[in-house]
Amino acid sequence: MPPRLIEAALAETAATVDQALDRLLPTAAGPERRVVEAMRYAVLGPGKRLRPFLVLTGARLFNVAEEGALRVAAAVEMLHCYSLVHDDLPAMDDSELRRGRPTVHRKYDEATAILAGDALLTLAFEVLAAPDTHSEPQVRCDLVVALARAAGAAGMVGGQMIDLEAEHAALDIGAITRLQRLKTGEIIAFACAAGAIMGHAPEPARQALHAFAHDLGLAFQIADDLLDAEGSAAATGKPVGRDKAAGKATFVSILGADRARAQAEMLARQAMQHLDFFEDKADLLRAVAGFVVSRRH
Amino acid sequence: MPPRLIEAALAETAATVDQALDRLLPTAAGPERRVVEAMRYAVLGPGKRLRPFLVLTGARLFNVAEEGALRVAAAVEMLHCYSLVHDDLPAMDDSELRRGRPTVHRKYDEATAILAGDALLTLAFEVLAAPDTHSEPQVRCDLVVALARAAGAAGMVGGQMIDLEAEHAALDIGAITRLQRLKTGEIIAFACAAGAIMGHAPEPARQALHAFAHDLGLAFQIADDLLDAEGSAAATGKPVGRDKAAGKATFVSILGADRARAQAEMLARQAMQHLDFFEDKADLLRAVAGFVVSRRH
Repeated sequence: MPPRLIEAALAETAATVDQALDRLLPTAAGPERRVVEAMRYAVLGPGKRLRPFLVLTGARLFNVAEEGALRVAAAVEMLHCYSLVHDDLPAMDDSELRRGRPTVHRKYDEATAILAGDALLTLAFEVLAAPDTHSEPQVRCDLVVALARAAGAAGMVGGQMIDLEAEHAALDIGAITRLQRLKTGEIIAFACAAGAIMGHAPEPARQALHAFAHDLGLAFQIADDLLDAEGSAAATGKPVGRDKAAGKATFVSILGADRARAQAEMLARQAMQHLDFFEDKADLLRAVAGFVVSRRH
Repeated sequence: MPPRLIEAALAETAATVDQALDRLLPTAAGPERRVVEAMRYAVLGPGKRLRPFLVLTGARLFNVAEEGALRVAAAVEMLHCYSLVHDDLPAMDDSELRRGRPTVHRKYDEATAILAGDALLTLAFEVLAAPDTHSEPQVRCDLVVALARAAGAAGMVGGQMIDLEAEHAALDIGAITRLQRLKTGEIIAFACAAGAIMGHAPEPARQALHAFAHDLGLAFQIADDLLDAEGSAAATGKPVGRDKAAGKATFVSILGADRARAQAEMLARQAMQHLDFFEDKADLLRAVAGFVVSRRH
């Protein structure tokens, strides 16, 4: 699939997801409106909506009802945005720029940013568990448990903890790989698995998607490291060169840019191969893997 | 019921809840262990475990399986502790002392405290949605949705947002009542309602518990304001006199201590009357209402 087509597909999905997010987020009113405004600011800015795209594309493999899949896609994006808001805080990565705009604590203040993140995390679970997400409550519970595991201390939060400590520790490639699997990989894996959960997919299909997500997540992270090392703030919409300035070990600092790029491309090819199981039904997912390593933002 | 007996019942329940929390919290291991240690520190310290007590006592009214009720009780306490950890942060209430010990960001650091709170919130939903909590997935979904609504922007987080803004605004009694209903009342209402959700209680029983929770929550908060105005840090385990120092409008600053105390006692009596529906089966809940307004810590 030509890069132009996957970028068009991503943009079309992003517009649909943005509408769903707009509907699902509360409306700012009352004396607590500041936190709702901050939630909407955090979520409704520009964004690739990669994780929602994975949810929706994965769900189509199993003929899942579009409305429910869209709610799950929106919940994953809320959770992703909460993690960005908290990671950007002064006590964490201390970032001023995100998606080309001031971060939430710069636009509002730290307390509001903490609360907006908390409320987005909470809302993600509310959306998953509500009846409109799937006709079977067991499926909704499975989604809640799966997202909670991916996001908690054994997943994303654990990865961010390791990442914060990485500035004081000399991590090797194995340790960095685990860090990134936790920090970004588990949520990407949830996004890829959600459709299979909703569509009662057979075990081989789940395993194929899990393997795809694993390689895709790592390829994505290496590409992110390369953008931090070589990209511009104008293109990425966030500060660059921060890993090196912080003396942080990354795939790029250990492997060097050329080997890191080769590794990302190898992982993307490997990710695509895991989709052989789905034959030509998974062309869009294959194209995502290509997009992830070729993106410039 | 004599005060001695309800205090003994609270202490006994606290011990059981602490064991459940210890089992449900992850064990610190791996390079992410710091955040798990902070989660355990935040939750496993001394605490009245009032909200878990309400869950367990409410659940007994409807013959709910003890094991499941205990998991819900633990989930509510995790959520409560997350809110304390985040509220204590320098950007929020900037507290150094909680339950007689250094707050999480003082014992660890701000980043770890933010992450530990995030992970506790996430774990609360994982516990609710997991099969051991209730045999019916629909009930588990109902619990997730109810807790999320109580905790999110239209509940606890919204209340904390208003509270932070209260330092710049002259709130009247109506505004303070709404603030406190959101900030502490909604979670107390969830704790009182959880047993009814789990036990498929009929509507009149739910309404009685909801009315009880409403008055109990306000009585609790007025008692809290009185302790802040008149108590000692040694007794409460947290800094006192902070509302006044911050020029914050509270029930006590507006009504004065004597009228505030009378109001709390009136609310506690009113709370008890809502339990007439349950006749003598609700004696422990009645006693909690008495305890809440007479407590010295």
